[in-house]
Amino acid sequence: MAEKNVKVGLVGFGTIGTGVAKLILEDADSIAAKTGLRLELACVVDTDTLAPRPVKLPDGVLTDDFNKLLKDNSIKIGVELVGGTDAAKQIQLKMLEAGKDVVTANKALLAEYANELYKTAQANKRCIAFEASCAGGIPIISAIRTGLAANNITAMYGIVNGTCNYILSNMTLKNEDFSEALAAAQKKGFAEADPTLDISGGDSAHKLAILASIAFGCEIKLEDIFVEGIEAISKDDIRYGGEMGYCLKLLAIGQRTENNRISLRVHPSFITKDNRLAKVDGSFNAVSIFGSAVGQVMYYGRGAGMMPTASAVVADIIDVALGNSATTFSHLNLKPRNEVVPLIDKISTLVSRFYIKIMCKDQPGVIAQWSKVLADHRISISGALQHEGYGPDNTVPVVITTHPTQQKNVTAALKEMKKLDTIGGEPVCIRIVDIPEDYD
Amino acid sequence: MAEKNVKVGLVGFGTIGTGVAKLILEDADSIAAKTGLRLELACVVDTDTLAPRPVKLPDGVLTDDFNKLLKDNSIKIGVELVGGTDAAKQIQLKMLEAGKDVVTANKALLAEYANELYKTAQANKRCIAFEASCAGGIPIISAIRTGLAANNITAMYGIVNGTCNYILSNMTLKNEDFSEALAAAQKKGFAEADPTLDISGGDSAHKLAILASIAFGCEIKLEDIFVEGIEAISKDDIRYGGEMGYCLKLLAIGQRTENNRISLRVHPSFITKDNRLAKVDGSFNAVSIFGSAVGQVMYYGRGAGMMPTASAVVADIIDVALGNSATTFSHLNLKPRNEVVPLIDKISTLVSRFYIKIMCKDQPGVIAQWSKVLADHRISISGALQHEGYGPDNTVPVVITTHPTQQKNVTAALKEMKKLDTIGGEPVCIRIVDIPEDYD
Repeated sequence: MAEKNVKVGLVGFGTIGTGVAKLILEDADSIAAKTGLRLELACVVDTDTLAPRPVKLPDGVLTDDFNKLLKDNSIKIGVELVGGTDAAKQIQLKMLEAGKDVVTANKALLAEYANELYKTAQANKRCIAFEASCAGGIPIISAIRTGLAANNITAMYGIVNGTCNYILSNMTLKNEDFSEALAAAQKKGFAEADPTLDISGGDSAHKLAILASIAFGCEIKLEDIFVEGIEAISKDDIRYGGEMGYCLKLLAIGQRTENNRISLRVHPSFITKDNRLAKVDGSFNAVSIFGSAVGQVMYYGRGAGMMPTASAVVADIIDVALGNSATTFSHLNLKPRNEVVPLIDKISTLVSRFYIKIMCKDQPGVIAQWSKVLADHRISISGALQHEGYGPDNTVPVVITTHPTQQKNVTAALKEMKKLDTIGGEPVCIRIVDIPEDYD
Repeated sequence: MAEKNVKVGLVGFGTIGTGVAKLILEDADSIAAKTGLRLELACVVDTDTLAPRPVKLPDGVLTDDFNKLLKDNSIKIGVELVGGTDAAKQIQLKMLEAGKDVVTANKALLAEYANELYKTAQANKRCIAFEASCAGGIPIISAIRTGLAANNITAMYGIVNGTCNYILSNMTLKNEDFSEALAAAQKKGFAEADPTLDISGGDSAHKLAILASIAFGCEIKLEDIFVEGIEAISKDDIRYGGEMGYCLKLLAIGQRTENNRISLRVHPSFITKDNRLAKVDGSFNAVSIFGSAVGQVMYYGRGAGMMPTASAVVADIIDVALGNSATTFSHLNLKPRNEVVPLIDKISTLVSRFYIKIMCKDQPGVIAQWSKVLADHRISISGALQHEGYGPDNTVPVVITTHPTQQKNVTAALKEMKKLDTIGGEPVCIRIVDIPEDYD
């Protein structure tokens, strides 16, 4: 079988760029044997051409001149690995306009500007491939778009941020404080020096925006997604939840609700310990998807890191070069914003169970007071836990779990409860997510 | 976007055929919205046109005349769901020769005749899509071929037969005998009236042949695969293994061994209880794959059943209609038999750990006797378990686990041990598979 030469240009020679260069340079033979494509790294653009990297490029490949890549018409595929939204967007737009297909791992950019980028691609009869943008090593986008194409996806629950999962795992398994676990994640290279985007849930929301748009066939924007991070999680709450049978994960959730509406949210979630996602530890990612025909499927793997992400980028380069991405991309038929916006559920209407921790002053009548507040808001208690002994300011932590109720009821009840002088400090409220495990 | 009409012909209107018909008839709109393809069920062929089925075909679609499908040139995609190897092979060959692409769920046929079928397809410039042949609802073939294309796959461990997993789960979790668990599986519809192909490991071997051929890029035949079924497994061994920290699964294993050699085997396997595959219960399937770049990935979902399998068949129909399957299929570049055969490891050279149960007569010197046999064959013991009390014929079950040793050593030792008059009955020997879980 004749091999087809495929010249690839790379913009951004950081960690992922280095991984992609390594795969293309070192595995060109095995990729050619498997796919018939001989990948050639024709041009690597980075503002820093001097820093040492653990891969040696052929002479003349590395440049700080983006125009060199842009003007080389033999380069049909441009890989944007710059990250961020401003420069990256211009780079992608220019590559598309210069007639190149684009491969990217940039979830922040897609979450914010997918629509504009997709339209530019379609206007230029080009495609954008973005498998590496979500859950790196897990081919989740391809699974949703092709493997599950015959399914109406009813729900997906994802652990899509390795940093947060590493932190929560350490807090759970090693009884570390949030700050200790964050420091450990930074030391291991799983968290950035500024971890805000990860721990705030923002990065998970970027990925959910991308996954939900293809799963539900809608133009999704970040503003459609309710986001709560893990910054305020204490190991006490993880322990109390654990005693009640739950494990805490930061989940990205996309659900079809009644009348074809959509609920999109990222928040710390208590799930039962025997759920498959509860067993995803450390920096790993996993996504459980429920399809109308297939039932439950789950994908598990590394969500980040040099080589897993590079693996997804190169898979996309191959898919683009084979022409498959162009076909799939041309059928990306997303319902436009004006139709989508009215379908998005507000968080206030969410029906969920809740874990609530109240710091009660140890005196007669306390329970009567706060339990009346709950009753007034029609919130029914499903479980309770109170250990003997004292917390700060002579208070006792009382933990309850609720039956399903609307978020707005809980919000209102908590607001009222805070005014009680028998309660110390802010009540803690964490959603309990009952993921429907599919059994025989 | 203009819709493209895609006429589909179906041969075989049994369980899976019914599921495929249902999806095409009931979900045509949502599939068109997602893919731009309007699927039309143009012809359904079955020898039985009278049996009632839970789906109503449009008038004139059902026929017992295969030639009607064959001669209709507007039907570009033929789906073979007849099963078995004889008639099915002729049906596929004729459809390919008539210029139709073929979609199939027939693992037995592919495991035996893939090479002939692939060559006929290529000679006729057609493709065969077979996602539904392995692990139904899990898009595992697409994952290996496209998502992991940039990886050298070093190993895969699969639970790919739902019947066996259901039986072993029931034996483990409900303490049922093999025969009770089999009866339960039959009652639930997870096992055929004649369960031989499943419980003998044969069906798993079919799937392993297909998966290994694409993962390792080789023409694999059934005879390359060592196969041992679950018929002889007793709940006692599951319990003893459990006490030593193991869970029993029927695994299909494909591994790269030294010097680019390949080990292919299906056998009952003790794996540690905390391994992710140990938690796959009931009729579910799961496959753990290790890639050079991506590390460990795992896919989990329903491996059989009407709608999960139909979901995979329709995904393939879509992929064929979009033209993606043709591209991927044309690059199916398998190393030919004459190069593959010398690379296949013999089971005798397998290095593994083993669980061995010996029924010892309760008298002085017994341990000294059989432990000498093990020592003579350089087999080192890593764990032992002997409960007080008696088994049949006044014997005591003694269980040991070994350090890694060659299969041929164990085979020879067991042969010798059987001759000892202090040993009652056949020793039980089950391989312990140390799946390398990927941690941070």
